Amino acid sequence: MRPARLPALDDIALEDVFHALSDPFRLAVVRRLAAEGEASCQALEGDRPKSSVSHHFRVLRQAGLIRTRNEGATHMNALRREEIEDRFPGLLACVLSKQDG
Amino acid sequence: MRPARLPALDDIALEDVFHALSDPFRLAVVRRLAAEGEASCQALEGDRPKSSVSHHFRVLRQAGLIRTRNEGATHMNALRREEIEDRFPGLLACVLSKQDG
Repeated sequence: MRPARLPALDDIALEDVFHALSDPFRLAVVRRLAAEGEASCQALEGDRPKSSVSHHFRVLRQAGLIRTRNEGATHMNALRREEIEDRFPGLLACVLSKQDG
Repeated sequence: MRPARLPALDDIALEDVFHALSDPFRLAVVRRLAAEGEASCQALEGDRPKSSVSHHFRVLRQAGLIRTRNEGATHMNALRREEIEDRFPGLLACVLSKQDG
C-alpha cells in the first residue's frame, strides 16, 4: 500500500462522516481505535474477508476519521481524534457514549 | 397517510441514525426543524419530487429523528429533540454546530 492520502478535515462534509459511521463494523473500528490508540488492520478485522476490510478502512480514511501508517508490512491505524473534535465537536463523544447501539 | 408508527429510541442503533443523517437533504431537514420547531413537508421539500421527499421523511422517521402529525391534509414534522438528546447525547449539538459542512 502506498502511503495513504490524508484528506483535510475542512474539506469533509458532515454527511460523509455520518456515512462512514453508518456501518456497524466501521463504527466498531472507530470505537476500538478510540480505546486502544493504534491498531493493525489484522487486529481489527476479525474473520472478515480482506477485500471487505480494505473497503471499510478506505471509507474511514476518506471521511477523515483515521490515518494509516506502514510499519514494515503492517498497516497501523489511528483515529484523527483531535482534528475530528476540532472540526466536528461532540461527534466522538456521541460515538463513544453509547456502546450498546 | 396513516398516523406514522413511532419507533422507540431505545430500539434504534446509532449506525442507523448516522445512515439517516448521511444525506444532505435529510441533514438539512433536521437542521431546519431544529431551528423552526415544526414544519410541513411542503415547506421543507423545495422543488424535489414528492416520491423522493416521502422516502427521505420515512428514513428520518424510522431512525427516530422526527415525528409527523396530520393537520388536515398537511403533514407537520418535528424533531424528537429531547428523546434524541437523551439517547444519543451530543449528536444534535454536532449536527447543529457546523452549518457549513
